[in-house]
Amino acid sequence: MKNRKSIRKYSSRKIDKDLLNELLEIACRASTTGNMQLYSIILTEDDEMKKKLSPAHFNQPMIKQAPVSLTFCADFRRFSMWCEERRAKPGYDNFLSFMNAAIDAMLVAQTFCVAAEQKGLGICYLGTVLYNSAQIIDILKLPELVFPITTITVGYPDEDPKQVDRLPLEAVVHYETYRDYTTEIIDELYAMKESLEENKKFIEENSKETLAQVFTDVRYKKEDNENISKDLLAQLKRQRFI
Amino acid sequence: MKNRKSIRKYSSRKIDKDLLNELLEIACRASTTGNMQLYSIILTEDDEMKKKLSPAHFNQPMIKQAPVSLTFCADFRRFSMWCEERRAKPGYDNFLSFMNAAIDAMLVAQTFCVAAEQKGLGICYLGTVLYNSAQIIDILKLPELVFPITTITVGYPDEDPKQVDRLPLEAVVHYETYRDYTTEIIDELYAMKESLEENKKFIEENSKETLAQVFTDVRYKKEDNENISKDLLAQLKRQRFI
Repeated sequence: MKNRKSIRKYSSRKIDKDLLNELLEIACRASTTGNMQLYSIILTEDDEMKKKLSPAHFNQPMIKQAPVSLTFCADFRRFSMWCEERRAKPGYDNFLSFMNAAIDAMLVAQTFCVAAEQKGLGICYLGTVLYNSAQIIDILKLPELVFPITTITVGYPDEDPKQVDRLPLEAVVHYETYRDYTTEIIDELYAMKESLEENKKFIEENSKETLAQVFTDVRYKKEDNENISKDLLAQLKRQRFI
Repeated sequence: MKNRKSIRKYSSRKIDKDLLNELLEIACRASTTGNMQLYSIILTEDDEMKKKLSPAHFNQPMIKQAPVSLTFCADFRRFSMWCEERRAKPGYDNFLSFMNAAIDAMLVAQTFCVAAEQKGLGICYLGTVLYNSAQIIDILKLPELVFPITTITVGYPDEDPKQVDRLPLEAVVHYETYRDYTTEIIDELYAMKESLEENKKFIEENSKETLAQVFTDVRYKKEDNENISKDLLAQLKRQRFI
């Protein structure tokens, strides 16, 4: 687990159906809010569906190339339908319920990923789901009270990339209360990251002065974030979670 | 991983510091949005802190009893400070950024849990964090752009509970598109759960007619969900994520 890395190129080898089911069974053993299992998993294997989904993932090649992709959704629909059929009045069309279901979906997703990697498969998370949630909802035909949280692509690795850097552990761990950062601490914590050749190259390729500017000016821009936030909230409303 | 269960009673055995650090290192190898590591982990070991946190977790005994608890937070503060100190203008005070950071926090949390269980430890998720986020923010002194997502308690098991039921896999897996449920399908999928002795006992203990009513009328009530949703959104505003 300590040597893992995301895999973005997959061999043509298919994933055995029994293995896939076994991994899904394991994933569903993850903790879940009140044992309500507030998630659904949409499997994509069909080439036509991959083609349809690809633009929603900004045409990242993994979606077409991986044998399987899985979209993990927050789902209060199944549970609410069950309630309605059992003379119980569901009250889950609200933001807290969305968050509980989103957390459930993430626990299942990550459990699937760890188990898949332990079986020799490679995975990659596509954060793009939240950027184009309207499209994903349409393509996967998600009804109200169902919301796509994340997609992963899975397959046998056809690359062996270098493990990317992480901040030192003390950057992210706090004892008892949040220890706020100072300029000096930030300098120290980010020094290693900033010293890496690949990150220096990254600055150059993007014609920026600092690595941070690559994030704020190119990859995760304020204006984009704000526009997508508006859309994301609108989609949550459409799916009746707010 | 298939036989795992949540553990709510812990022995007095402490967790070795090296093991804890090793588990945290492994957890930080989880996938993270754009390698930004948008999370912080607050460790609770101190008895005074446990006492303070306990009411925020509705006095569930695990928080005082477990040797360690960890609160996983969405954190865009560290990254934003780094940007500001590198002539880069962060734009992460918005809902999309919150969701990205919340997902990052959940991936780290669940990776920690799987690794901990593989080392013989037991864990339990406390969903209560979202129910009393204001208190948790105060007690852990979380600054703006930091938000608590989940808490887990960890320790060596002092119980060996029965594994709880799960819906059959076909309840949660959909092929290509969402296959909506019908009354008949819901009946089938929930039949096993409803037939279990422990669930029948649960209905009786709560003086209800159906298992679903235990959820809607006792455990996860509409009115509570709506009130807490309001508070949760207010706290997201306070922490500048909306």
